[in-house]
Amino acid sequence: MPQPPALPPPIERALVLARNHATHTPPNPSVGCVITAPDGTVLGEGHTQPTGGPHAEVMALRDAASRGHDTHGATAWVTLEPCSHVGRTGPCCEALVTAGIARVVASVGDPNPRVAGRGFQRLRQAGVEVEIGPGAEAARELNLGFFSRMVRGMPWVRMKIAASLDGTTALSNGTSQWITSEAARRDGHGWRARAGAVLTGIGTVLEDDPMLDVRLVETTRQPLLVVVDSRLELPPGARLLQPGRAVLVYTASDDAARRAALEAQGATVVSRPGVGGKVDLAAMLRDLAQREVNELHVEAGHKLNGSLVRDGLVDEFLVYLAPRLLGAGRGMAAFGPLSELGAGIGLSFLSAEPVGPDLRIVARVAGRDAF
Amino acid sequence: MPQPPALPPPIERALVLARNHATHTPPNPSVGCVITAPDGTVLGEGHTQPTGGPHAEVMALRDAASRGHDTHGATAWVTLEPCSHVGRTGPCCEALVTAGIARVVASVGDPNPRVAGRGFQRLRQAGVEVEIGPGAEAARELNLGFFSRMVRGMPWVRMKIAASLDGTTALSNGTSQWITSEAARRDGHGWRARAGAVLTGIGTVLEDDPMLDVRLVETTRQPLLVVVDSRLELPPGARLLQPGRAVLVYTASDDAARRAALEAQGATVVSRPGVGGKVDLAAMLRDLAQREVNELHVEAGHKLNGSLVRDGLVDEFLVYLAPRLLGAGRGMAAFGPLSELGAGIGLSFLSAEPVGPDLRIVARVAGRDAF
Repeated sequence: MPQPPALPPPIERALVLARNHATHTPPNPSVGCVITAPDGTVLGEGHTQPTGGPHAEVMALRDAASRGHDTHGATAWVTLEPCSHVGRTGPCCEALVTAGIARVVASVGDPNPRVAGRGFQRLRQAGVEVEIGPGAEAARELNLGFFSRMVRGMPWVRMKIAASLDGTTALSNGTSQWITSEAARRDGHGWRARAGAVLTGIGTVLEDDPMLDVRLVETTRQPLLVVVDSRLELPPGARLLQPGRAVLVYTASDDAARRAALEAQGATVVSRPGVGGKVDLAAMLRDLAQREVNELHVEAGHKLNGSLVRDGLVDEFLVYLAPRLLGAGRGMAAFGPLSELGAGIGLSFLSAEPVGPDLRIVARVAGRDAF
Repeated sequence: MPQPPALPPPIERALVLARNHATHTPPNPSVGCVITAPDGTVLGEGHTQPTGGPHAEVMALRDAASRGHDTHGATAWVTLEPCSHVGRTGPCCEALVTAGIARVVASVGDPNPRVAGRGFQRLRQAGVEVEIGPGAEAARELNLGFFSRMVRGMPWVRMKIAASLDGTTALSNGTSQWITSEAARRDGHGWRARAGAVLTGIGTVLEDDPMLDVRLVETTRQPLLVVVDSRLELPPGARLLQPGRAVLVYTASDDAARRAALEAQGATVVSRPGVGGKVDLAAMLRDLAQREVNELHVEAGHKLNGSLVRDGLVDEFLVYLAPRLLGAGRGMAAFGPLSELGAGIGLSFLSAEPVGPDLRIVARVAGRDAF
């Protein structure tokens, strides 16, 4: 692949800061900020804190202050447009202006309609020089779920699949634990950890009774758990219904008794009936975006996977291929049969890397990131 | 992966020479040879010529002579034990002794029972110092098909598969041209070119009427073509029956008229009946080894692939995954359903690399290279 042009080192560093802390910021975007003196000396750096905590710019200013540096006339390098609104925290623009920052270099504008250029406008009004663009692609990619939610009103939907090299995800008798290695499962938990929500289907719950939480990697935050359960078949004793855990159950059923039983276990039941007694999956995704889910991590069986693929709702595939052949059984996503090759889902491979004995392939649905 | 220990530079160079000319030597192994003076100066180098031509050692001696170098007291670095028998060409040991070579460093012994240590013995008898081992693994790997034929009496069976990411090799209606890209097909021709034979099944011939020759890369040699055709259904007008082309048809049928029609088109029909009116695939492979096929390149449909996998006859998989999902359809190899995951075919991934927009994965059946 062609190498992108070199970025200014403070932006590279700010991107690293943002990338290293991406799991604890949802629903906020993960942002990095570096403050440099006119001679290029780094005065301070910071990154977005967990929800309710300060943003990257404030952290960087505090870092500079704690090191005894004067930030008057300094440049702030930040991976996303500084906020101008009072949200969960005060606006960053004011903090930058107050600290005497003379120039802000930002990778990309904030797609949040409450910001959307107003941050840059506020800075310029205050006499701060503003430059936009360096690292734009990487900064957007880093927060693609946030951009998706803000621009499309939908989460970025990443489907995780564990399969044999020949694409079998479960034997015909349903056996699927474990096709891939412990190393692949741990890697998968890393991807769960950065998601706003993990989604599964009732079939998987009834067959495997999974927890679907983040266990194999450290995390400061558990994603929301979402179950697609058209007929409200989720047993109130399912392991995933842990006390205090946020569980959303989407259904097409109006069975009040079953709803009450699940709500008694702490679940939130949301009715989104679609055609044929099924959940309206697109409506569910819109609702999840409303609930501030940026990235949705799907770990479901071949049937729900097939429905999501058929409805054109998947943006990216995270596929772990185990070094084995399993022959006949369940595939990755039950759809088709197609009548021509052109009717398939076009992808592009982003990466293919070994994870333990397995291969991890990231593939993106063609054109899905153009929003 | 851990890096292997550094090899002596002349052995590295001899391995490169062998590797660069591996397509034109079958059924002979591809060998490289470098001759150095006592001070390390390279005096000459050579590699195995096409069948009937000189071996690497003789080529290297000639190269040294043509450059006016005296090889008395020199060291010959060679990737395989020099031959001591008169085969298609004279023995290399005599040539080395006559040229005054004082020391031979060979990567690995020749598994050919006509050599099998006799080369080293002959050299030592003549007072030549012999060292064995540097580059052994790479030299064996380079000629794994030759080692397989000599040691196991079977070719090294490599199955080439083109599939979508979800493992579909053809739609339910049989459409499979083309799932992967032109770049992947050209790469596949490079693998065909190094094989002693390309094997396909009658189903593929009847559906696609393929040529299965080496076209998309340059070659000095066309592999033998093998068709598994239990009932002798191969149409005498099939495109693969080109005048002058070596085609072997393995069958379980004794239909004399069909046999005669195919033989009239230049094909050789071999009867290897097995159970259930099918060809005995293991017997076919043994026969192919007798016919000096080192590497067998399989390009067949899911049914024959499944039979070969089920019978435990496949050593390696060469899989091109296209960036698309195709859903329901034909898989890579029709076998199973299995009742437990442990009954699958265990592999190890050797490599996963982009080829154009596709991914090329090489996977080896666990333990198959331990012979």
